[in-house]
Formats: sequence, C-alpha cells, structure tokens
Amino acid sequence: MDAITVIRAKRDGGALTDEQIDWVVDAYTGGAVADEQMSALLMAILLNGMTGREIARWTRAMIASGERLELGEVGRPTVDKHSTGGVGDKITLPLGPVVAACGAAVPQLSGRGLGHTGGTLDKLEAIPGWSPRVPTERMRELLREPGAVVAAAGEGLAPADRRLYALRDVTGTVESIPLIASSIMSKKIAEGTGALVLDVKVGSGAFMKDAASARELAETMVALGEAHGVRTRALLTEMSTPLGLTAGNALEVRESVEVLAGGGPADVVALTLELAREMLALAGLADADPEAALKSGAAMDAWRRMIAAQGGDPDAELPVARETEVLRADRDGCLAEVDAYGVGVAAWRLGAGRARKEDSVQAGAGIELAVTRGARVTAGQPLATLHTDTPEAFEDALAALRPAFTLSATPPPDRPLIIDRITEA
Amino acid sequence: MDAITVIRAKRDGGALTDEQIDWVVDAYTGGAVADEQMSALLMAILLNGMTGREIARWTRAMIASGERLELGEVGRPTVDKHSTGGVGDKITLPLGPVVAACGAAVPQLSGRGLGHTGGTLDKLEAIPGWSPRVPTERMRELLREPGAVVAAAGEGLAPADRRLYALRDVTGTVESIPLIASSIMSKKIAEGTGALVLDVKVGSGAFMKDAASARELAETMVALGEAHGVRTRALLTEMSTPLGLTAGNALEVRESVEVLAGGGPADVVALTLELAREMLALAGLADADPEAALKSGAAMDAWRRMIAAQGGDPDAELPVARETEVLRADRDGCLAEVDAYGVGVAAWRLGAGRARKEDSVQAGAGIELAVTRGARVTAGQPLATLHTDTPEAFEDALAALRPAFTLSATPPPDRPLIIDRITEA
Repeated sequence: MDAITVIRAKRDGGALTDEQIDWVVDAYTGGAVADEQMSALLMAILLNGMTGREIARWTRAMIASGERLELGEVGRPTVDKHSTGGVGDKITLPLGPVVAACGAAVPQLSGRGLGHTGGTLDKLEAIPGWSPRVPTERMRELLREPGAVVAAAGEGLAPADRRLYALRDVTGTVESIPLIASSIMSKKIAEGTGALVLDVKVGSGAFMKDAASARELAETMVALGEAHGVRTRALLTEMSTPLGLTAGNALEVRESVEVLAGGGPADVVALTLELAREMLALAGLADADPEAALKSGAAMDAWRRMIAAQGGDPDAELPVARETEVLRADRDGCLAEVDAYGVGVAAWRLGAGRARKEDSVQAGAGIELAVTRGARVTAGQPLATLHTDTPEAFEDALAALRPAFTLSATPPPDRPLIIDRITEA
Repeated sequence: MDAITVIRAKRDGGALTDEQIDWVVDAYTGGAVADEQMSALLMAILLNGMTGREIARWTRAMIASGERLELGEVGRPTVDKHSTGGVGDKITLPLGPVVAACGAAVPQLSGRGLGHTGGTLDKLEAIPGWSPRVPTERMRELLREPGAVVAAAGEGLAPADRRLYALRDVTGTVESIPLIASSIMSKKIAEGTGALVLDVKVGSGAFMKDAASARELAETMVALGEAHGVRTRALLTEMSTPLGLTAGNALEVRESVEVLAGGGPADVVALTLELAREMLALAGLADADPEAALKSGAAMDAWRRMIAAQGGDPDAELPVARETEVLRADRDGCLAEVDAYGVGVAAWRLGAGRARKEDSVQAGAGIELAVTRGARVTAGQPLATLHTDTPEAFEDALAALRPAFTLSATPPPDRPLIIDRITEA
C-alpha cells in the first residue's frame, strides 16, 4: 500500500477500498503519509466525493485512531447535541441543564470558535473560574450529578480527526460533506454518547448556505451515527438571521441565563425546547417535560451545579467590554432581514471570535441586537450595540454590520425556525 | 493575498488571476506557501484544469523564479529538442551531433530518468569520464564548438519547477497537461534556446497514452514557446513499441554510435533525421542536409568532440552487464506487438532505471531486442536478451517482458512513426 496509489484512485474518480481507507488514515496519524500527500487526497475527495460506504469506513478509521469512551455506567441515559454552528447559537448552554433536569445525561465535548461563529468553550470561559478541562473519570461523576458537562475533547479522542481538521483548515479542503460529516461524527461517536441530536444550520450565517446541502450533510451524519450504534436524529434549522439578540461570549451567557430564568428571546426558548424534546425522546424519556423544567427552576438549578462543578461561579459578574457604540437606523422602514453572516463577522471583528486557532478572544466583545427581523423602525432608532475592548475595531465591525440590516416598506414573510427533521437517510 | 483564497478559487472551478498565479508561485518558492497548500492547489488544477492564459502565466512565473540564460552570442543559431520520454528513446544522442554538424548549436539541458523511461544524462554517464556538470560560460564555448552540449540543468533555472516537480511526484499530481506543459516549457525557455522542437510521444511506453491528449499537450507547449519568443514546433510520434533495439544506458549509447557510423535501426535513423530537419528549418538552416552529415562522418566527428569536451573518452569500452538471459519464443507466429511499456518496465527492473530520485542506475543493464514488430518468429528463437549485474532481477524482469510480445497468425498493419506535426495551437 502506498499513498500515491490511494491518491490516484480517488483522483481518477474511483472509490477507495476499506483497506486503502484504513491504511491511509492510520499511516497519516502515524506520520508515514505526509501532510502534502494527505492534502492532495483531501482535495480529490472534496472534488470527486465519497460513497456512503467510503464515508462510513473513513469515520470508523478516525474513531479507531484513538480511544472510544465508555459512558454506559453513569446511571442515566446519555444523549448529546451537536450544532454545525451559527451566529448567536448559544443553545448548548440552556439545553444541557434542561435535559439534565429531565433525567438524561449530556456529555458535551465541545470546541472553540473559528471565524464568524463562536464556540461553546469560549462562551462558558467568560464565566469567572469555569474550566473545560475535565478528566474522563470526573466526567462520569458529573454525568451522574448534575447530569451535564461541557468539556474540551481530550487528545485521545479521534486524533486522526484532530490532525486532519488542522490540515483542512489551511488547505482549502474544509467544505466537503463527506469530510465534515466524518469529522463531526467520529468525535461524537468516540465520545461515547448513547444518542445524538444534530442541529444542522442552514443560511447565510451557517456553514451550509442552502437546504439541499444541509439535508445531505444531516442524512450522512444520521446514517453514520446509526451505523455505529448511536441513536441519531437531525433538525434542519434556520440560520439566515442570528439566534436570539446576542452574538459574543459573555453576552450569550447572559442571554442563556435569562432563558434558564424563564425569560429570554422566543427563538432561543423555542429551539432549546424543540431540541430537548428530541433528545429526551431518543433517551427514552419521552414523557419528560422540558418546559416545566425551565418554569420550575429545575433547569436553572442544574445550570448552577454544572457551572460550579467545573470551577465556575454562577453568581459572578460577567465580563463587560470597555467600549460600546450604537448603530442606528438611517430611515424609517420595516426590517426585512438581519443577516446572520454580517452580524457574525461584526462580532468577530470586535474580538468575540478568532482568525487563527492560537488567537485569544475577548469575553465581553460582541453584538447586542435592539430589534429583530420583521420589526418596524424609525430613523435614529438603535438597531444594535457594539461591544469591544479594542475601539479601533468599530469601523471594520460597522462596515460588516450596517449592510446586515435590510429595510423594506412592508414586513417580510414569516420564516419557520425548524425547516425539517431527519430521522433516517 | 493568501494561499487558501487561491486554492478555493481553483477548487471552485474559477480561473486564477495573473496576480494570484504570480503570488502563489513566488510565495511557494520562497517558503511562504507550504507544501500541503501547494499540493491541494495542484490537485485542484489537475481536476479542474487551467485556461491558456493561466498556463502561460504559470509558466512565466516559474521562469521568473530563477535566471534565464542568454545564448545569443554563440555564433550559431540555437535550437533544442525535447522528448516527453519513451522506451529506447536515445534520439538526443545522435541528433545533437547531426544538427551541430549542420551548423546549428544544440544547448540541451537534460534530466535523469525516473520509472520506466531512461534519462539522457544516465545514458551518457555510461561513457567513462563523461560529466554533465558544465558551468554556463563553458556551455557558451561548447555551443560555439563543437556546437552541441548535454548538461544537467543548474539550480538557478526555474527553481519553482524543481520544487513543484518533486512535490507532484509524491502527491499524485503529475498527470496534468497544464502542469506538464508549464514544467517542460519553463525549463526550456529559461535555458535560452532560440528555437525548440518537441517530440511528444504517444502510446503504451509514453506518458500520453492516446493521441488526443498528446496533441493537447503539444499544442499547449507550442503556444507557450511562441508566447515567450521561442520558435516552437512539435511532432507526435509513435511510442507503443520501443525505439530501436535497445533499452538501457550503455546499450543505447552503443546503438546511437551505430547510427552515427551510418548504420543502426531504421526507426532511430528516420526519427533522428526528421527531428534534425525540423530543428534546422527553425534555425534558419533549411538547406542543410542532415543525412549527408551522417554519411560523411561529420556527425560522428561532432559526437566525438562533444563527448571529449565534457571529459568522456569516445574510444573507451562501454560497460557491460555481468549477467545475461535470453527470452525465446514459445511458439511460431508473427510479432503483432512488442509493447514499449513492458520492455521499459523490464529494463527498469534489471537496473537501467530508478524507482526514486536518489537511486543509482546500472550502466550495463537493459534489454536488447532480437526482433521487431511484424517479424515472423519460430518456437525457440531468441526474442530478447536481458542484461543486468543483479541476476536476482531476471524473474521480475521476465514477468514484465514476456507479455510484451504478442504473437499472431498474420502480420500486423503498418503503423507510421510520425503521427502528426503541430506548428501552432
């Protein structure tokens, strides 16, 4: 077996054999296949695709490159959620406590943000004292009680994916459904969850800009999960406009706490409950009532215990950015669109996100929307507040944020938050 | 400008701008674009192609990465030949002296062989004392007298191509017409020749297996040469069967000397004269008579002076392999085919070629054919002699060589040596 033969097979439009896939993933992880060979193969995969069998085998090989956690003995059914990422997508924060309060265990291994979408770890790190470093044995304890944990994935889970992801990031080979699906699912399957709900985002602020490719990604991932014994479903959800009113780390924590306190923006509440119902159904707890868990304060209790268990102070003041600026409407009209991508880029430029993996983020930076899609505004009315510690960033952020607001004479048509539900490929 | 943007542009099917091409070739040569980024771009180029403008600019950028020799002051018109490589293709050896004897200067910068086709430098190095290391100033002297030089290309010529070629070799990105054409032509243009005849081989023993892709490659290279002020023509020639009766370094030198002495196989003589006529016409010496130069001994004189000028002894005994083996016909029949690829692989396995750049070659190893396509043979009659210093290679070599001979009841149809002549795209 050699790398050039494998590259040529995919380059020339063929399907790789199981043996070729096992060999190339293992040899790359071990260093016998060089970065420049793997990146040529990745580009050939991106352009020529992979069959369902190839994707399943590729995922299996990535899982086999490391350990697979065993979470069977935590006394609760385990169920996780993964979002493909969007602007203002803080759903993991209220969702874990809601589902834990209903009796399931949520073993969320998360990542950091890159580009215009934030990462769950970056958001929770805005809470003073909170740490994502949780050893596996401690993770099992936390899944028993309080029943939810958000941790950084250890080095031992799917190490092949770790190397491949870093390589794809610098070689223009990220945007491939087979590679995205196998990357997400290898980590989630290795994490050891018994069930998984995928939130596949569609729209300008999402990785998938159209419903057809989002559906293909969702179906691919559901099939991969089921093939590995993980009960898996996916929702396709709207990401043309931000979720909620905030994009930025501490800002999103604050909004999540509002939801846990029984308030918060309607779309964040609705999506949290919808995902919670899917997760609880997969966990065999279809009779649980997540809405009641929110209203009774049980979810808030679970949140406070979850944060405290990882060293965070749930009562601490959240960081606030040093400088703010307000963007105002320049005329009267109806808000036909608040573009998620523009808001995401603006928050990123203010310091909420990072351009490179090694960059740090500002906890307080981001965007707070004063209005949502469909609202009537008058000239001079605030549309959004920009927060940052680096006020020299306002100009670039405003250049992205201003065109994100589209005014029209009449209200835009309604747009459902949940586009579709995928149960099997 | 950044590598990922350039990779994505080509990946998504677009044409690269002149600025993108200049930047990426220069940044790769300088180390700012990494191997894994360039290999992803090369795979995208291989699969999505390049426009004529892109190929021309890519070639220009590779030339600009180094020096361009100035050979205007050598007192003779300069004209070179390049073959895309074939089995038994020793034409450069008699051709340079023939053309030099007719009054032109042949500045041949050559390479070594890799895989089943031999390299001109490997062949000439079979001559005791001969060296391919010729400083540029000495090269100008040799072009004045004797008028032909065969030298290894210096580090300063198209260094971008040197790095790219090594990368393509290990990443499955060799087989791309834009990349092959720009690689060949950047070196030939930088070499400083005033005119160039391309011998584009077609068939099993050639890089291009079919006439359509060979024609596309030839047209692309002719256009590139003309765009850079090098008068360029191409012949498409047959490479389904080996050229002449020998494949292997010293064996091919011996056959070349036979041609220079007025003998040798008809196909080698015919192709040498055809290419000589094309070169002399481009050099403005259309009235020169290459056939007379062969018959009169003038070409042999030029050969002896060319070899001696580079330290070689034209009268020295050539190396002979220690062991031989004879392959015989197993039945009566007519030789319908002598497959070039099979003969090339057999010679390679005997030690005439190398698998990796850093390998050495055996001067005496190779194949000597006893019969040619179309001949009638009887059972037990020798078909070929295998030569090697490593007799343990006989078995593998015979496994490649035996099926190269196809016997039939009736003679095969004639096949012209010269398939076509390309003067402009």
